[in-house]
Amino acid sequence: MSILEKAKLPQDLKKMSLQELEALSEEIRQKVLEVVSRNGGHLASNLGTIELTIALHKVFDCPKDSLIWDVGHQCYAHKILTGRLDKIDTIRKEDGLSGFPKITESDFDTFSTGHSSTSISSAYGLARAKSLLGDDSKVIAIIGDGSLSGGLAYEGLNNAGAFKKNFIVILNDNKMSISRNVGSMARYLSAMRTRSFYLKLKNTTDTVLNKTPILGKLTKKLLLSSKSALKRLLFRGTIFENMGFMYCGPVDGHNIKKLVNTLSMIKEIDRPILLHINTVKGKGYRYAEKDPKIFHGISSFDVKTGGFKSSDENFSAVFGDTLCELAKGNDKICAITAAMKIGTGLSQFAKKYKSRFFDVGIAEGHAVTFAAGLAKGGLVPVFAVYSTFLQRSYDQIIHDAALQGLKIILAIDRAGVVGEDGETHQGIFDVAFLSHIPNVTIYAPSFFDELSFMLKDAINNAEGVCAIRYPRGGELYKPNGYIFDLEDYSVYGKEDCEVAIVTYGRLFSHASLAKEKLRQKGINVCIVKLNKIKPLKNDLIRYLADFKKIYFFEEGILSGGVGEHLSSTLSHNGYKGDFKITAINDEFIPHATVASTLKKLHLDEESIFELIYKDLGNNENAK
Amino acid sequence: MSILEKAKLPQDLKKMSLQELEALSEEIRQKVLEVVSRNGGHLASNLGTIELTIALHKVFDCPKDSLIWDVGHQCYAHKILTGRLDKIDTIRKEDGLSGFPKITESDFDTFSTGHSSTSISSAYGLARAKSLLGDDSKVIAIIGDGSLSGGLAYEGLNNAGAFKKNFIVILNDNKMSISRNVGSMARYLSAMRTRSFYLKLKNTTDTVLNKTPILGKLTKKLLLSSKSALKRLLFRGTIFENMGFMYCGPVDGHNIKKLVNTLSMIKEIDRPILLHINTVKGKGYRYAEKDPKIFHGISSFDVKTGGFKSSDENFSAVFGDTLCELAKGNDKICAITAAMKIGTGLSQFAKKYKSRFFDVGIAEGHAVTFAAGLAKGGLVPVFAVYSTFLQRSYDQIIHDAALQGLKIILAIDRAGVVGEDGETHQGIFDVAFLSHIPNVTIYAPSFFDELSFMLKDAINNAEGVCAIRYPRGGELYKPNGYIFDLEDYSVYGKEDCEVAIVTYGRLFSHASLAKEKLRQKGINVCIVKLNKIKPLKNDLIRYLADFKKIYFFEEGILSGGVGEHLSSTLSHNGYKGDFKITAINDEFIPHATVASTLKKLHLDEESIFELIYKDLGNNENAK
Repeated sequence: MSILEKAKLPQDLKKMSLQELEALSEEIRQKVLEVVSRNGGHLASNLGTIELTIALHKVFDCPKDSLIWDVGHQCYAHKILTGRLDKIDTIRKEDGLSGFPKITESDFDTFSTGHSSTSISSAYGLARAKSLLGDDSKVIAIIGDGSLSGGLAYEGLNNAGAFKKNFIVILNDNKMSISRNVGSMARYLSAMRTRSFYLKLKNTTDTVLNKTPILGKLTKKLLLSSKSALKRLLFRGTIFENMGFMYCGPVDGHNIKKLVNTLSMIKEIDRPILLHINTVKGKGYRYAEKDPKIFHGISSFDVKTGGFKSSDENFSAVFGDTLCELAKGNDKICAITAAMKIGTGLSQFAKKYKSRFFDVGIAEGHAVTFAAGLAKGGLVPVFAVYSTFLQRSYDQIIHDAALQGLKIILAIDRAGVVGEDGETHQGIFDVAFLSHIPNVTIYAPSFFDELSFMLKDAINNAEGVCAIRYPRGGELYKPNGYIFDLEDYSVYGKEDCEVAIVTYGRLFSHASLAKEKLRQKGINVCIVKLNKIKPLKNDLIRYLADFKKIYFFEEGILSGGVGEHLSSTLSHNGYKGDFKITAINDEFIPHATVASTLKKLHLDEESIFELIYKDLGNNENAK
Repeated sequence: MSILEKAKLPQDLKKMSLQELEALSEEIRQKVLEVVSRNGGHLASNLGTIELTIALHKVFDCPKDSLIWDVGHQCYAHKILTGRLDKIDTIRKEDGLSGFPKITESDFDTFSTGHSSTSISSAYGLARAKSLLGDDSKVIAIIGDGSLSGGLAYEGLNNAGAFKKNFIVILNDNKMSISRNVGSMARYLSAMRTRSFYLKLKNTTDTVLNKTPILGKLTKKLLLSSKSALKRLLFRGTIFENMGFMYCGPVDGHNIKKLVNTLSMIKEIDRPILLHINTVKGKGYRYAEKDPKIFHGISSFDVKTGGFKSSDENFSAVFGDTLCELAKGNDKICAITAAMKIGTGLSQFAKKYKSRFFDVGIAEGHAVTFAAGLAKGGLVPVFAVYSTFLQRSYDQIIHDAALQGLKIILAIDRAGVVGEDGETHQGIFDVAFLSHIPNVTIYAPSFFDELSFMLKDAINNAEGVCAIRYPRGGELYKPNGYIFDLEDYSVYGKEDCEVAIVTYGRLFSHASLAKEKLRQKGINVCIVKLNKIKPLKNDLIRYLADFKKIYFFEEGILSGGVGEHLSSTLSHNGYKGDFKITAINDEFIPHATVASTLKKLHLDEESIFELIYKDLGNNENAK
């Protein structure tokens, strides 16, 4: 029987020998590999933090002590060790475990994460709360080197540096964020990685000092005082020390013994302390070690060969190809990514147009303001970003781009429902938050060729902030009769009919299938597909006004969405027909496949068909 | 005749002697004092940067060279020196100069600013654009020590540190942001302030080196190489150097000679360089030097005595008093500010409940995530913040608070139109962006007592993210017959009538006056005042459905606002009456008084009266 099967975890970790802990790490490694190969997920980061997770749960008493995992995609070992081994097979599956820490899933998940660079801020808040309430249990934030390029992490460090109690930040340095991490901090860490272990305090100096009590106390005090010259000499001046943190490291993040010793030592120090550990992304699985970027966030694969079904063409790739094509003839075009070169389809651009490619780190706010600067200088910046992460640029879009009338292009990938990554990653707010910003145009392609056309149009003809939003993955069903007509909206099925479906983006495919099914039942509907969802012009309102019934379907949040805006405008202009809006009504959407999620949201072809069929008075079973 | 009157500026600065420059600085100081005492504005920061501005325009050739002023409230001397002396009396007045740099106002205003910490990012973007286009003119970002606590500034530094060309960041260290700047960076700068001048390179070493050409070149190269031990020894390791910047300073920011010499020197260095200067907020005006916080952003005052009319009671003060009152009986209540202790009314709380008060620096994103951490730890955090700055917490509200169902209170000050600060500071988006976030409740008090009640209700009874939004300044007209009835909405004037006004917040006062005027004309309307604007419940919809005409008035952006949401919901439920929404329709709002702005937006009592009067078929002149 394996250790995992027989041990009571995490409690039994306390009494396990080093050999047992090491054996356990191997078992967990195999388990993670097996699960991710089947379910997809974040492989490389999880393989890299197994020993750390074991050491943390051995040294600390969770959930009394609190672990906060930055981004959270490295939490699989943590879930396995905290009572969720029996459900780990369900990870990222509907109704199964989340692929990220989730506050509602377990008391061991202190804080839900998904977006980067939040851990220091939330951990510091929790630590201050514990301190105020007289609770002396520990709080530990675990953050990757990539996440350290986000300004929020710096705001947290800056604020926490003044704390007078134990507060631990573990810098999990795996030498890269998702793409190569460009930035001074990355170079700085790179220089620190190879230094010899720093903070000998506890295990050498301190031991010696404590043997000569009176002198010892004084010297120890001097060592710990930030103004002490002796201390400066011993501890040198790292950025982290300048920010008020004691710095300790680097430690081999795969050496459980060293990790346990160091963690045991630093948890006794009444100061903010940063422990720098070196880990290898994909550790222990040669294919992932060799190509950690490929094995970062993945779909299922073959464990033996490391091979996985190459995905079909997708919107990201089409975007990247089109941008390269356009950049060939226009040397003003620049591309920006916030550490997501591969995910957003910019690899080719980065290679071909090196001087015009900017990876700014996980810094979406900066990416937009930087883009505004490029635009002010006469260039045409294209910032490719996932919808959910663009939420971090909200104020910069308003203040630094739109307000100034500067032209920047936002290529918004993973717009709409994203599937297995779940709640933290759904791209369901961008339409609402961009729609209310002046000087913004939003394009919503449904198909690859439309994305190409719209990107070209945005670059060549549009003004101000131009957002083009497209879903994760590939294009769906495209009806034969449909022709994209280069206008703000396209009408599919101009039959003489009184019923219209209004939608945009990938839902057009679902709506088209529903339309065909309705036709089989003798019901004619036409589909008004919005190619631009902002601005929505008067001719659209006039066109829609003639329909007796209008059904809006929107893969995004209801409030502030297109359906509310159009229906309000229609009614305001005297429209007396009926309408129904199907959109996401004031709720967060948990993980599941895209297909299943759309079904639950009543946005799939079957639901669209049924809603209209029944609403038009057909009460018998629609199927 | 004064220098200002006779000189051709900024060109003539090039030929002026030091004495003339110093005399000029005095003239500008008097001018700024005179204008701000009359128009209100940012006094202390402007008095502190006069010499710097003169030195910058003497050394650089603007607008070819580009200055970007962080926050931008220190731009008055810059405006005076760049062709706007004749209009400086109009600053912050309607149709006059903006109180901030404005891209559309002058070619010398490289970038519009207003929010903090953007300058490094936008300047770096512009510098990269110039570099790509073969333009070797300079880009200079001027940023205060307060703004350096914002994560965006760090993201910018982190990214720009790798640049291979001249790129200048001037750290204008005036020893405080708006409130006392808490954070490690502030303490770090404080330690650096008193050091002797650093970077002797050009004026000592370099001069010597250049006299011995061959050896010199090599040594200079060594000096500039970041790996050189010699250089490390000379330049020591500042945070900025670790981030890839050459560090230079501190220089007395009121010594024009030293500034000119240093700027002339560093503009020749092909690297990112940070020049640290020390300035005194309020320099040259004793009342402002003595109390720079009071003279930060002010209304008109008496130059001779430094006295200004104490403003009447305002929402900020009522908020602060109420929170203190509540905190007396509930030791879980904490207050957070992002460097706006005074402006948000938290001074008293900070004094009384020191351990529960957190000034996190100009770091609104961190403030919310930190608050979420406090909430997770069992406390009740209240983050007091201006509406416009809360835009920077958008993702943190979604990801770190709402998604986790954690209870935090957002006390949103300066909600709605703010007046003279203008475009960058209008609080017109918060209703739209908060309305579409699940797990958010929004309260909208119209009067002081309502603010107190709602704050108490939010703290004691509500769940999730609770936002309470209130305007800048004091409460307005409160009709005699109106009683706040503790419900989600209040109805004022329950007369049997077919016409309703729906509004919230301060517009209720304007609507009440309009209602009285309508009554004089024999028209009865009732006012449905929304006390909670999210969630909007079904009983409100049912109540509104009985009116034949509904007029929505909203001091915020139309798209995603309450008017669109309610009207869409009403129509969806079969409402066949008429409605009209008056709100801000897809535009940014320039500076002017609040009264004038509301009038232009058709949101004042007169406009409300006229719209309804005419719309009900009364075509004769309403007055």
